[in-house]
Amino acid sequence: MGVLERKEREKEQRRQDILDAALTVFARKGMDQATMDDVAEAAELSKATLYLYFSGKEEMYFALHLRGQEIFYRMVARPGKTVGSFNEKFLAYLNTLVAFQQKYPDYFEASFHFLTRGISLEKNHVLVKQHNENNRLFMNLWIALIQEGKGVGIIREELDEVTAAIVFWMQFTGFLKIYPALKNNIKKQYGFSNQELVQKFFDLIQFGLFKK
Amino acid sequence: MGVLERKEREKEQRRQDILDAALTVFARKGMDQATMDDVAEAAELSKATLYLYFSGKEEMYFALHLRGQEIFYRMVARPGKTVGSFNEKFLAYLNTLVAFQQKYPDYFEASFHFLTRGISLEKNHVLVKQHNENNRLFMNLWIALIQEGKGVGIIREELDEVTAAIVFWMQFTGFLKIYPALKNNIKKQYGFSNQELVQKFFDLIQFGLFKK
Repeated sequence: MGVLERKEREKEQRRQDILDAALTVFARKGMDQATMDDVAEAAELSKATLYLYFSGKEEMYFALHLRGQEIFYRMVARPGKTVGSFNEKFLAYLNTLVAFQQKYPDYFEASFHFLTRGISLEKNHVLVKQHNENNRLFMNLWIALIQEGKGVGIIREELDEVTAAIVFWMQFTGFLKIYPALKNNIKKQYGFSNQELVQKFFDLIQFGLFKK
Repeated sequence: MGVLERKEREKEQRRQDILDAALTVFARKGMDQATMDDVAEAAELSKATLYLYFSGKEEMYFALHLRGQEIFYRMVARPGKTVGSFNEKFLAYLNTLVAFQQKYPDYFEASFHFLTRGISLEKNHVLVKQHNENNRLFMNLWIALIQEGKGVGIIREELDEVTAAIVFWMQFTGFLKIYPALKNNIKKQYGFSNQELVQKFFDLIQFGLFKK
């Protein structure tokens, strides 16, 4: 391996170390309260070094959101998830979203942050391009699943799959965001378990409130 | 009017003035960034005076969330909304939620804050009791509507109305939170209007993804 390759590898390693430190800081203090000084301290680097890698905490947080996207994509697209009946695949997809949110709450929060506040990096930024590409992959997975469901006569054929994919994804992301704060209260007040609540959500997504 | 009544009225007026100032500050800086000094400056009062009325910014923000709940309850429960066919009432309820979020984004944000982070005030606090009472009123409105829908044969009779009310409300609140940041992007990328997106949400809530 040449000198240039080694330097590139070391640079990427340092970038990932900074992101690890940033993740810890953001998880502890929240994105709004965290400062570049906090991240520098956690990374044991000078603030000047941080700025060689990132324009600021917004860009760091966005890079963490991309990490989350990539973890999620590997979870949802792995071969074992793409076999089985349509209903099995549909539930596997939903359960993967729940599992991702429970296993990686900090990456979920980073993604929700940009989903609700918008992205402040310029449009042609390398990270924004990566984000758009990841989004396209997710949507294509879900659109293909809806198309398959139409093909086997399970999904209503009058639904436009792109629209349905977007709306469903907004509903479910919102549900997941609210879920952790409410599940214990709901359990106490109404007596049904977390698993029951998620199941009821799946039922409502599948069949809606109205008779056909 | 006696001296005591006048003093009580003046005290309540000052409390509301402080909340008006806090709303402006929170809308501009965000709840996390805002300080009691910012609110004191906006209210043209000393910070010590603020602490005679509120234990801190968390309690102020919670009081603003209660204002929002009361505005929403008046919007959704007013007499004109309780007549008409079941489908008309159902859509009127959903449209009121959208209208509330669009007209009072800052109150919506305050409510979403406590929904996702939980309430840090003690359980028997007068504001927490008011919040629980308001929540009960909302849920009862919506549960009664679902029961009516079952009665007229429109809503699936196998749905438990309490569970359906909770799950639906989580889905819709999440959708509304995500909606403002995405609507323009979705319009540009997929070509359908904001009104179409909300209509598609209503359709999916009513009929779900699957054939029956």
